This record gives sequence, C-alpha cells and structure tokens, in this order.
Amino acid sequence: MSPPLQPDLDLAASLFEELDRATRRGRGIVRDSYGEGEQAAHGIARSAANAMSLEISVDAIGNLSMTLPGRNRSAPRIIIGSHLDSVPQGGNFDGAAGVVAGLCALSAMQRAAVVPDFDLAVMAIRAEESAWFDIAYLGSAGAFGLLDPSCLSIPRSDNGLSLDATLKQQGFDPRPIRERQRLLDPSRIRAYLELHIEQGPTLVARGLPAAVVSGIRGCKRFRNARCTGEYAHSGAVARPYRRDAVAATVAFLHHMETVWLQHEEAGADLVLTAGELFTDPTMHGPSKIAGETRFVLDLRSLSDATMSAVAAEARDAATRIGAAYRVNFDLGATSDSPPAVMDSRLRSHLMSLLECPFEMPSGAGHDAAVFAKVGIPSAMIFVRNESGSHNPDEAMSLDDFAVGTSSLLELLMNFPF
Amino acid sequence: MSPPLQPDLDLAASLFEELDRATRRGRGIVRDSYGEGEQAAHGIARSAANAMSLEISVDAIGNLSMTLPGRNRSAPRIIIGSHLDSVPQGGNFDGAAGVVAGLCALSAMQRAAVVPDFDLAVMAIRAEESAWFDIAYLGSAGAFGLLDPSCLSIPRSDNGLSLDATLKQQGFDPRPIRERQRLLDPSRIRAYLELHIEQGPTLVARGLPAAVVSGIRGCKRFRNARCTGEYAHSGAVARPYRRDAVAATVAFLHHMETVWLQHEEAGADLVLTAGELFTDPTMHGPSKIAGETRFVLDLRSLSDATMSAVAAEARDAATRIGAAYRVNFDLGATSDSPPAVMDSRLRSHLMSLLECPFEMPSGAGHDAAVFAKVGIPSAMIFVRNESGSHNPDEAMSLDDFAVGTSSLLELLMNFPF
Repeated sequence: MSPPLQPDLDLAASLFEELDRATRRGRGIVRDSYGEGEQAAHGIARSAANAMSLEISVDAIGNLSMTLPGRNRSAPRIIIGSHLDSVPQGGNFDGAAGVVAGLCALSAMQRAAVVPDFDLAVMAIRAEESAWFDIAYLGSAGAFGLLDPSCLSIPRSDNGLSLDATLKQQGFDPRPIRERQRLLDPSRIRAYLELHIEQGPTLVARGLPAAVVSGIRGCKRFRNARCTGEYAHSGAVARPYRRDAVAATVAFLHHMETVWLQHEEAGADLVLTAGELFTDPTMHGPSKIAGETRFVLDLRSLSDATMSAVAAEARDAATRIGAAYRVNFDLGATSDSPPAVMDSRLRSHLMSLLECPFEMPSGAGHDAAVFAKVGIPSAMIFVRNESGSHNPDEAMSLDDFAVGTSSLLELLMNFPF
Repeated sequence: MSPPLQPDLDLAASLFEELDRATRRGRGIVRDSYGEGEQAAHGIARSAANAMSLEISVDAIGNLSMTLPGRNRSAPRIIIGSHLDSVPQGGNFDGAAGVVAGLCALSAMQRAAVVPDFDLAVMAIRAEESAWFDIAYLGSAGAFGLLDPSCLSIPRSDNGLSLDATLKQQGFDPRPIRERQRLLDPSRIRAYLELHIEQGPTLVARGLPAAVVSGIRGCKRFRNARCTGEYAHSGAVARPYRRDAVAATVAFLHHMETVWLQHEEAGADLVLTAGELFTDPTMHGPSKIAGETRFVLDLRSLSDATMSAVAAEARDAATRIGAAYRVNFDLGATSDSPPAVMDSRLRSHLMSLLECPFEMPSGAGHDAAVFAKVGIPSAMIFVRNESGSHNPDEAMSLDDFAVGTSSLLELLMNFPF
C-alpha cells in the first residue's frame, strides 16, 4: 500500500498570501459579496485553476466551478466548496480555506496522476456571508432556486444599489433567482464537502488541529424582544409598586440560563445568548427605574425539538415573570433556520481518518447546510483557528490546515459511495 | 377652644395657576435654575409676599425669604421652605407646593391676627433640582457654605455659561460660594419645615392624602459599572469557553435582587435599581456573544450601614461572579449622599395631627436633607400626587394639599419647642 497523498501546501501558502495581498484593507480583509473584493478572490482562484488546467465554469449568478474530470463523466460528482466573500474587516481564512483546500487536494491528485472515478469540482460559492445584503447563502441557495425573489430588491448597505442591479453590473443574471430556477440538480451531486476554520475556541482549548462537524446548529431567534414597564424615580418607589423593566428582564434571562443548564445536563445540544440588551438611552437615567428594555435572545441547537421546547418555555416564562414584575414582555416572532445534520457515513469515515478523532457541532451557518437541506450527503471538517472568525485576527496555521486537508484528500481517494 | 385655622386655599389656587401660566412651555413646566423660568416663579412668590406685607429679603445667591415677624424678633426663627426650580419639562408642583404652603399658612395666621412667638419665614430656595448645572441643592447648600467652590465653573448645560457667570448675570454674587461663606447661621434657625408632593405612588396606592416623612434616603451609586468579557460568535462558542458579559451581568444583578430581598425581610430600609444597562451598540449583534456591558447600580436607604453592607456585598459578588463567568467587573467608585433623619419630636407631633397617621421615607433628595445635615431640626410632609414627579403629568389635588398644609399650620400654631 502506498503512503497517503499529501495536499499541495505550496499552492495553499501562495493562494492564502495572494488573497491576503489583494483584499486586505487596513487591518482586516474586505471581500464584499458581489463586489470588488469577492471578485478579486474569484480571479485568484480561477487563475490557479487555469494553471492546473481544471475545467472552469461560472453559473448565472457567479458561482465558480473548477473541475477535475473523472473517469465516468456522467456519474454524479463531488463538490468541494466554500465561499470567497468575507464580512467587512474579516479575516483571511473564513470561507477561503475551503476553496483553497479543494484546489490543494485536486493538485495533489493531478501530480500523482490520479484520475478519480467521477468528477471532482471545487466550487467557489458567492455571497455566503452576504454582509452587504443581509441575506445569507445567496450563492448556494440561489443555485438551488431557494431564494425568495424579493431579495433582488435589497439594497447594498453601502452604495444602495439593489442586488438585482449589482448582479447585472457584475455581468451576472438575476433571472434564475427571480424565477426560482435551479442551476444545480441535487441528483447530479454525489456529496458536498466543506473545510472551514472553527469559529469558536474549542479546538484551541482541546489542543486538536481539526474536527469532524456533526451538524450545523439551527437557530431560533427572538430578534426584537421587548419588556415594557414604567419609568419612575429610583428612590421614591417601593418594591410593590415598581414596574422595573431591567429587574424583570434580568429575572427572565436568568431563568433562561437555568433552562439552558437543565437541557445541557439532560444531554441536549443547546447554546443560548442574549447578545444585545439595552435600556433606552433617550429615556433611562441613573436615578430612574427603567420603563423599557429591548433584547435579542438567540437559541441554537442541532435539534429542532430542543429549540421549540426552549422557545415555548421562553414564552411561558415571559408571561409568568412579566406578571410577577407587573411588566409586559413582547418576545415577538422568531426568525428560524433549521438544523442541518451531516451525513453519518461521511462523518464516521472522516472520524476514522483523524489521528485524534473529535466531533463537534457547528454553531455558525455554512453553505453545507444548504446542500444538506436539498438532500445531498454533506460533510464538514473544522480546522483549529485562533481568535474566532469574522475579525482581522483569525489565525489558522498551515500545519493544522494540512491535517484537515489531508483528511479531505484521503476521503476523496477512498470515497465510500 | 377655637377651631383650628384653615390655610388660605384661594391664595394657593391662584398661585398655582399663576405659576403654571408663567412657566409652562409646551406640555411641561420649565423653571430653569438661575434662569428665566425660576426667576418668573420667584417674582410671583415675591408679589404675593408683598401683597401680604411680609418682610422680604434676598441673599447673595438669590434665596428669597418672606417673613412674618414674631413677638420676639431675636429668637431663632422657623423656616418653611422648598425650591421653585423644576427639571426640564417637569410638573407644576414639585418644589412650588412647599413655598405655596408656607405662604398659605402665614396668610391664614395674618387673617386671624395671630402673631407668632418668633419669626416665621417662608424661603423660596434656589436651584434644588439644578438640572441645568447637574449639582443638586445649589441654593440651600450654598446658603450654608457647603458647596465645593469648583462648582462655579460648571457650564449651564444648554448655553454653556458657567454658574459663576450665570449668577452675576442674574445680579447675584458668587463670592460666598467661592469663599465657602455661610449666609445662614444654623443656631439662629429653630426648625426647617418642608411640604412636598410624594414622588412615588405609595399614597395613591394606600388612599391617603398626606404622610409624615421619616427621613430622606441616602444614596450610594455605582455610576459607571462595567463588565468586560469577550465578543464571540453566539453559535460557535460552547459554555465553558464563553466570556459573556450579558450573562455575567444578569447573574450579578439577579444576585443583588436576592440581597435586596434578604435585607427587606430583615426589616432594613432599602431600594436597589439598575436604571441604565446596555451592550455597546457599535459592537453588539444578534449573533454575537456580548463582550461588554455598562450599567448603573443605585442603592438607597435611610441607613448608612445598610448601604455600606450592600455595596460591600456588590463588590464581593462582582469578584465571585466575574470569576465564574470568566469576565471582569469594574464597579468603579460610588457617588455617595448620606441619609438625613427627620427630627423625632416634629415627626411625632405631625403624626398626631394626621387623621390617618402614616410615615414613610423619601427616596428622593430634598433641601430638608441639607438643613438636617447642619443640625437644624427638620421635618417634611408628603402630599399625595399622581404619576410621579419630574414630568408634566404631576397631579396633586387642592384637597390633599389642604390636608398637608393644615398639618403644617397646626404645627406652627402649637410648635413643640
């Protein structure tokens, strides 16, 4: 048996460097979705694919496919994908690492003159972050005809140009989005594989270079929760007469933390965050009881049932605690995204390839969730990364990237189905 | 025995109406301290005193005294006082009610040809709210030489003119403040009496027209408390790695509410309020763990010991809970004002004059606190008031005012010392 192939790390190093040089603006990376920054990154990936003589195609909405042809060209292909856009002032690796990993894997196979059984396509997906249009997964959801056509009128946050006009300006065609047309046929895709930096500190804390992703947490978010009480003098109103929105909100959020702990102890997957919480700066004061708070409560889990149970308990608790504090909670509607479970065969195969096998959920969304949603067997590999993501301090070592990419390459070389 | 004297309620009605007409600006009352609104109110009080032939004097910093001479003019006098300034867009009664009550009581005595044993002076005190200079008790503390002279350089919040220049512009003299000079000699004041609207809902809730004030709560305030954690992705960071400033602040404030309950159950006087609480709007986000909160924690009590104990517990809890949540609490320095206990003889005498005797603390500060601080026997009467104070919806009925003012008048007619 020959030793396993090694991914082309020289290519990785030069691509990361080129991407950094082309899209760093001040301290951070700016690859604006459907803008100059994302376009520059696509240009770099395309040049590399050209140099490798991969087959290149760009779909109507700008997703770039770079294909190493397989022996049986009519068999369903594997897509190795991720996005090339970033958030404003992001880091160099969120998204790009997955595209670079795909190219490095294909490069290694080419050098070893390996011809795969079926096509292997690296897909540079458009506008996953889509921070400038505030609707995630534009490229992947658009490719499966899943976008609400009304998104075409969303104005770009900085220059006000609609998504429709922006697409045309870049030479793309908004029509498939308007007509909910499929550009990708799920039945023609054997599997979707995505390598991505971990966006939390788990792998750093555990001293592991990479992990297999068990699934992508869904999200149930009370985006516009509000507690209304009554403003009053902080010294002059005794407890029984208070309608203190801060005290009630504190009691509510404290209760929800207890609920989180209970679910965690019962073995459920759950994270719960109130990331925004504020009294009204035009009305509050140091010697006033607050008459209003606004907050966000964000629930995430691999289990829809867990999120539903916790959201129901939040509504019950809001009523109960609201009555006790003589305030009114209006949690508002939730915005929901369902969890996406990764393919169990691919997960266990990937686990067998890691020296220290470790599986963990992804709390953030990824294009893999869209591919899983349309029934394509999907898998993800996380690579250790310092300082979280979506900021200029993202830091992934090439050694850790090599561990993750090697697993990806080995999976491609011995694909289970 | 003759029936008790009745205060001059016609005078009260006309004074309240005149004050309202002269100083209402839009929905609310504007009697800007050392400005046009306060000056108009002083003019109205002075005209009334002139019409009653009271002796009129104005001290160097603008406090107005209107005296009904007593039989023994060299004996220490009683001052019946309150302030005539308001907060921006305040109500018609906060402060003014006490000055009007004094004039109505003296008017009743004059009409009945009662000559008191010693001088009775109604004092219209300057700038108690002092909302435009953000330093309370300018008039009363200034009269006792208690102000820090540096306050003279505070700019008026709207026009930027310093307090020093404002005083001169109004024809007053900042020198006594600069030289910490006493304009009032405490040994020449027998007692200080103040009638004031209640600023909370207690009397409305209990169906009582008036109450005796047991004391004025002191205040210990953490004005600039702050919790620093770390911003991170709300989905991607598991509990053990979170440094969630909101979760920690919620745990801290929830604990402090428990501490409040314990003190209350033990019979201590205490109110505890976090009136401002906010994540950073330039940094927070719906899918971000918050890396920072800022908040105010305001403790008030009739007991210095209670406030000190609760503040010490707050610091301990901040350290303990900060460690548990891997965040850093910086509660900062407290700004302190001591409690002022009202004179026990005057309190029990006033209680005996109420049909439904009821005693309660004042949570807000009043000039009476300054008079008590320099050792003058002081007492306060609260009158029922709807909708709290410091807003255009203050509502005191003339009937309730009559109950409070009658007690004041009876106290003057049968003063215990």
